[in-house]
Amino acid sequence: MTGTVYLVGAGPGAADLLTLRAARLLGEADIVFHDALVPAAILVLAARAEKVAVGKRSGRHSTAQRFINKQLADAAGKYAVVVRLKGGDPMLFGRAHEELSYLRARGVRVEVVPGVTAALAAAAEMGVSLTRRGAARSVTFVTPRQGAGEAPNHWLRAVLAADTAVLYMGAGDAAAISAALIAAGKPAHTPVAVAASVSLLEARTAYGTLAEMAQLVGRVGGAPALMLIGEIYGRALDKAVQPERCAIG
Amino acid sequence: MTGTVYLVGAGPGAADLLTLRAARLLGEADIVFHDALVPAAILVLAARAEKVAVGKRSGRHSTAQRFINKQLADAAGKYAVVVRLKGGDPMLFGRAHEELSYLRARGVRVEVVPGVTAALAAAAEMGVSLTRRGAARSVTFVTPRQGAGEAPNHWLRAVLAADTAVLYMGAGDAAAISAALIAAGKPAHTPVAVAASVSLLEARTAYGTLAEMAQLVGRVGGAPALMLIGEIYGRALDKAVQPERCAIG
Repeated sequence: MTGTVYLVGAGPGAADLLTLRAARLLGEADIVFHDALVPAAILVLAARAEKVAVGKRSGRHSTAQRFINKQLADAAGKYAVVVRLKGGDPMLFGRAHEELSYLRARGVRVEVVPGVTAALAAAAEMGVSLTRRGAARSVTFVTPRQGAGEAPNHWLRAVLAADTAVLYMGAGDAAAISAALIAAGKPAHTPVAVAASVSLLEARTAYGTLAEMAQLVGRVGGAPALMLIGEIYGRALDKAVQPERCAIG
Repeated sequence: MTGTVYLVGAGPGAADLLTLRAARLLGEADIVFHDALVPAAILVLAARAEKVAVGKRSGRHSTAQRFINKQLADAAGKYAVVVRLKGGDPMLFGRAHEELSYLRARGVRVEVVPGVTAALAAAAEMGVSLTRRGAARSVTFVTPRQGAGEAPNHWLRAVLAADTAVLYMGAGDAAAISAALIAAGKPAHTPVAVAASVSLLEARTAYGTLAEMAQLVGRVGGAPALMLIGEIYGRALDKAVQPERCAIG
């Protein structure tokens, strides 16, 4: 028997921010390999599935990627519906490329189900649009990490050039990131928002400046947290939009 | 009576790529103001609601934004659940800022429900991750339009600095955009993907180079279409992932 592996976006955290397609696939799944950070309220939707935590905690990889790849391929030999459940969206900082390449090379059928990425849920929660006519026409999503073979601080360029920048998986290094951006010419007083536990009951947001970014991360309880940088966070914070919290069904 | 206005992301087009929260709110809505491009298969979920098309076609605004703002505020005076349904995500090129500011200034309660933005659905459909370890650590979403008071071609910088760039609402000007990028130093042979009707049955994708971008738009049937630019589109297109197509329920 050869099953299908679905790389599914779990969304930002709230169970009702799953897509209808993701919820249906979880209900049909025989086995679910999930990131460690996917909330229990989402995993219960996979009622009949075996659940295997393989995932990331704060960007660290608890299980080696190569081992995850092999587990997915092995599962596709045994089960019809294999779900690889990833926080946010699979195609944005989700290491989907590695899993897709591995599975395709072995002839395993793969489908990708997109999800709501954390930056969009944070924008909804804060009530501050990532783009704004006449003020912000570009938004960059970036992970400020140094990869093998990459130019040092390659990520800086993209942040400097965009009107709004959202930094994923960098909150643990907020002090160094803020210093690097200021050294590269980004004004120290650039407005910043930091958001943790986006879309969940325990969601926290803090506003300040680029120079204060590390303190803002501390104020929301530390990593993991999104860091959002741009002039749009300096105004119109008059009234925060309160997201609805609701359970499924 | 004072109702709540929900700015809701309709996602990329497929009805089952709505979030569970969006589907629930549509079912509860008294009135829905929707972009003209939102498919009928999504609008039917708003079974008991009056439906008002206010929306954009290919980035043009059929109804003046100011009139939409006023309609939303008026509806909140008459109905409990007012939904403003926007293609994709409301906080990314959705003009949410204008509606939020107007409604807040009038004391109308507003909540934002995030959605799956077209770029993520296109990545899922193509099976090409927007980011890739060691190759693409930043992705920029940009609309290549000239706003009042903006430096000419302000948007170019962000595209040039990012590893991957996704251009929203620019397909109608693909030839000029491609020429401007090449003149600014982006190599003419940079790989490009163009995606139309993302996530729908009639979805079409074409691959080529930056120099060919206008032809690629033609090949997928013209605007509206997303244009995706970056080295990641030049390889690993060995086997496209086929998305699942399914109706709700």
